[in-house]
Amino acid sequence: MKEYYYNKNVLITGGLGFIGSSLANRLVELGANVTIIDNMEPLYGGNYFNIREIESKLKVIIADVRNTSVIQPLIEKSHCIFHLAAQISYIDSLNIPFEDLDLNSRATLNLLELCRKYNPEVRILFSSSRMVYGKVEKPIVTENCDTNPLSLYGIHKLTSEKYLLMYYKDFGIPSTILRITNPYGPRQQIKHSKYSLVGWFIRQAMENKVIKIYGEGRQLRDYIFIDDIIEAMLRVGASADAVGEVLNVGSGISTKFADMVKLVLECVKSGDMEFISWPKDYEKVETGDIAVDISKLQEVTLWKPDHSLEDGINLTYQYYKKNIHHYI
Amino acid sequence: MKEYYYNKNVLITGGLGFIGSSLANRLVELGANVTIIDNMEPLYGGNYFNIREIESKLKVIIADVRNTSVIQPLIEKSHCIFHLAAQISYIDSLNIPFEDLDLNSRATLNLLELCRKYNPEVRILFSSSRMVYGKVEKPIVTENCDTNPLSLYGIHKLTSEKYLLMYYKDFGIPSTILRITNPYGPRQQIKHSKYSLVGWFIRQAMENKVIKIYGEGRQLRDYIFIDDIIEAMLRVGASADAVGEVLNVGSGISTKFADMVKLVLECVKSGDMEFISWPKDYEKVETGDIAVDISKLQEVTLWKPDHSLEDGINLTYQYYKKNIHHYI
Repeated sequence: MKEYYYNKNVLITGGLGFIGSSLANRLVELGANVTIIDNMEPLYGGNYFNIREIESKLKVIIADVRNTSVIQPLIEKSHCIFHLAAQISYIDSLNIPFEDLDLNSRATLNLLELCRKYNPEVRILFSSSRMVYGKVEKPIVTENCDTNPLSLYGIHKLTSEKYLLMYYKDFGIPSTILRITNPYGPRQQIKHSKYSLVGWFIRQAMENKVIKIYGEGRQLRDYIFIDDIIEAMLRVGASADAVGEVLNVGSGISTKFADMVKLVLECVKSGDMEFISWPKDYEKVETGDIAVDISKLQEVTLWKPDHSLEDGINLTYQYYKKNIHHYI
Repeated sequence: MKEYYYNKNVLITGGLGFIGSSLANRLVELGANVTIIDNMEPLYGGNYFNIREIESKLKVIIADVRNTSVIQPLIEKSHCIFHLAAQISYIDSLNIPFEDLDLNSRATLNLLELCRKYNPEVRILFSSSRMVYGKVEKPIVTENCDTNPLSLYGIHKLTSEKYLLMYYKDFGIPSTILRITNPYGPRQQIKHSKYSLVGWFIRQAMENKVIKIYGEGRQLRDYIFIDDIIEAMLRVGASADAVGEVLNVGSGISTKFADMVKLVLECVKSGDMEFISWPKDYEKVETGDIAVDISKLQEVTLWKPDHSLEDGINLTYQYYKKNIHHYI
């Protein structure tokens, strides 16, 4: 894999965000020629601090991924695109339905149209989400389970998936779809509670606040540490077998929500927790327990997650202890 | 059912087109207060001649369904909306990808947002398509088969379906999705070959032309006559059991493509047929054989299709023999 990315032109959309910048850091290490495009939309996750150590070794373009005149030349010379630019709050998607459609579906269609015309051989990886499944009936979710999203965010991610699969089948554009569970780790923005709750709760604990848990906090979630995601993504990008596939990306381990909070409190050693009833809006999009089957990803890439939730939370806490003023 | 629509305010988007105007004619007969909105986009199916007999008995608004200021007051006072306005060529959808997204997905989202805010109890029927299935593996397609559309048209219809199901689950807006197979009959535009081939072939036969069949014409299709569709739609609209459901609407009978052409030639008694090889663009979106299971629709509505393909073709031919100058 080290060799695969060496000297390759890699484009990362949304590259100043949590996952994008973590990818960029690893790819620069591997000798790739990295270009980042990010619109630095204030409410989203873009943050210059995320790339402070590699700034001189990559190219950063502050522009919207929907700006065709900017991305067309970038696409033309890319070997590989990690398409991560997105509206990433499933809660917000209902408040900004058309913006969500535009960013999470139309932007992907625009990207694919440009690839079809100017670079149909470019390798694409797309960050989708477990939210495409909606409320799942089966205890463990495999990639061929029904997709009944409960939020516009989930619907629009699913639409992008269908675009990618169609453009692969019809035009051979080689893409892979990654349905990521609940990602957390360093570099994630923790300005508000709308994205990752792990990061948000670490902040709350650090500020000695009371963490509020909806219901009894028994819903199962699959939390995956950023380094494990990056390792999986890089392997998938280098794998010919992954082309045209949909892959769950998770730790494979389900944890009760309240247990995650307990781990945060034990690690940070301040803060407290309290149980409150579900707010109305959240109940509607609540997906119930989630446990994902990651065996397909493991078979294709021989990857396995390396970090327990405890380790991951601790690494995240150590990061924010040093750098929190850059993230709040 | 007759009573159900009497004095009800019914809005038909795309109501001057093939299915919309056929619905309008029946609904006026049943005593409904019908309002049509249609943008009369020249390349689509809108045609004033379709409503010549009922013009004084309904309201026609020439506007785009995406125009919020026009449709908001219409939605507010409707009991029932038949949402049929669409870009309806799956072949064209790749030439106008963003227009297709806009009309076939975004317009539905806009409509649902307005319903959510101003009339969450309005009954919605949406015309989806068998194209959401894509290439099907099973011999007979049921509503819970996988959806892997091969065209942007199919993807965008599927996205609209997901919107409707989500807005029903999350906000209780009562809708039903109709996956219509290959509709044909009077009032369909036959200016070009991009919509229904049955109508187009009747025209070609009437003009004593040679009908070209791609490949061997062995692919199976389910052709359904317009009167049967309208009867099914009206029953579904009046059925509480159909709310929140996805229903196949077809004849339940599969016919070889070449056999349909033979029936056209026998009926019209002029024209001829010739076999040619598949054009490249069509091959990509060709879905293979289609046979749909219509038992769910039959159970819910006690409806059954009334017209054989032979009868339907004959009725269509009789219509165009009288009126063809209004449709070409």
